[in-house]
Amino acid sequence: MHPKKAYETLGHLVDNLYVMDLPQTKTDQTKDLLKTEYMKFKAAVENLTGVAVTSESLKSAIDVVNAKRAAIHRLSALRKADPAPISGLDALLANQVFFYDNPARFTESVNKICDELETRIQEKTGAFPAGAPRILVSGCPQAVPNWKLHMITETAGAVIVGEESCVGERGTRNLTDNTGTTVDEMMDAIVDRYFKVDCAIFTPNPERLDHIQEMVAKYNAQGVIHYGLQFCQPYLMESIPVEKALEEKNIPCLRVETDYGMEDAGQLKTRVEAFIEQLR
Amino acid sequence: MHPKKAYETLGHLVDNLYVMDLPQTKTDQTKDLLKTEYMKFKAAVENLTGVAVTSESLKSAIDVVNAKRAAIHRLSALRKADPAPISGLDALLANQVFFYDNPARFTESVNKICDELETRIQEKTGAFPAGAPRILVSGCPQAVPNWKLHMITETAGAVIVGEESCVGERGTRNLTDNTGTTVDEMMDAIVDRYFKVDCAIFTPNPERLDHIQEMVAKYNAQGVIHYGLQFCQPYLMESIPVEKALEEKNIPCLRVETDYGMEDAGQLKTRVEAFIEQLR
Repeated sequence: MHPKKAYETLGHLVDNLYVMDLPQTKTDQTKDLLKTEYMKFKAAVENLTGVAVTSESLKSAIDVVNAKRAAIHRLSALRKADPAPISGLDALLANQVFFYDNPARFTESVNKICDELETRIQEKTGAFPAGAPRILVSGCPQAVPNWKLHMITETAGAVIVGEESCVGERGTRNLTDNTGTTVDEMMDAIVDRYFKVDCAIFTPNPERLDHIQEMVAKYNAQGVIHYGLQFCQPYLMESIPVEKALEEKNIPCLRVETDYGMEDAGQLKTRVEAFIEQLR
Repeated sequence: MHPKKAYETLGHLVDNLYVMDLPQTKTDQTKDLLKTEYMKFKAAVENLTGVAVTSESLKSAIDVVNAKRAAIHRLSALRKADPAPISGLDALLANQVFFYDNPARFTESVNKICDELETRIQEKTGAFPAGAPRILVSGCPQAVPNWKLHMITETAGAVIVGEESCVGERGTRNLTDNTGTTVDEMMDAIVDRYFKVDCAIFTPNPERLDHIQEMVAKYNAQGVIHYGLQFCQPYLMESIPVEKALEEKNIPCLRVETDYGMEDAGQLKTRVEAFIEQLR
């Protein structure tokens, strides 16, 4: 996937396209590179908006975004229950809206959903019957309106209990440390937080293998569907070590490579149904 | 293209697979990153072989590789003649062998070919008739035994006069400065030389657009075939600005996306023949 090259063509079509250089490995030197890029981006934003980033405004922004993350963490934790109080499809939608809703409104909405889910859990009301096969989805992001895999899996009778994905826990986990007092300290905290992201673009990327297994245990999943988008080569490559690591732990894994179209929906449904049979 | 991820799987199959982090943008900071990687690689080679790199051995190695490059530069310069004294296919083979022959033997062989070509030029003997349409190939590398595009183009009556490619002038141009006296100075010279490479993995990469146009002028090409390999996304993306830059200079350009198979040879031949007609 070369979004980094796509801008060379898109740049002619829009104003103010801003490009950052992001590291591919995790060393002190590449972390410094990320800090440099974030500082340049801060300056560019200040220049574009005419508003300076102060320690007060940055602290406040960190708190707003942390609150949003905390709300989605609360939602994720409730998905541990059996019967699952919310379908994977609805939870995916919340994770998708995470990206573009007003952050304060999003936090409030998600917390309202969580209040309702807590009641459901007390009443043992599930979106699916107790004992339904529980699946973790891992891999590429699913942006609106991509609900294909969740729709296929959940209409086949299994419930998706977590997304190890950029639209999901890979993107939302880890709060930013908000104890810094200067802009520079807080920028360091932001660098620290984003440098932890275990995106497949990093190499090597062993943290991701650990996190998938942690999520399987945390959400009581019986199996993993690895979701790869065509041409998203980093995740297609990592699907091999992911499958291998899960095999070693006797966790069933289905590797799926698909796209945004619906042409393969029938074939995919057959494969997912067969996988779910394995889990029962 | 994610060779950088492929090693995560290949690493289990071989011993001593060594992975380097390479920059994607050109700044002082990413140049420092490249230096760090080259120094680490030097240490790894010393460790593996038990032989220390000294200022004498490094100077000698720089001279050997520079001689190899100078021989291929001599060959390239002879391709400016009309009639072309050597087919593109034969010249491509020399550029391919550049990668794996013993360097001293390669230099000697190429210089022998050049002696013969100089005689041919004096005698006005060409591999193709004088006035044959002249084409520059630009884009992805063509490794042995990939001779498809050259074979198709030259059997259609045009002559390929240069390769703007990693197997070609992108890889072979620029000598390494050999005036350093310490290992560190010479390592800096090597970093300088490789940091100039205008591979499409860099973004932005305007030097490549300039170099293509320089090569068109230098080798008196009438048109450019942009050769993209399926899944080599950086070059597929750059084919758009390349075509645009050439269009602005009224240089005909054919964009080809193909693979190592021969299944599309017929279709490709039809397209290349039509393109050559445009140049006559």
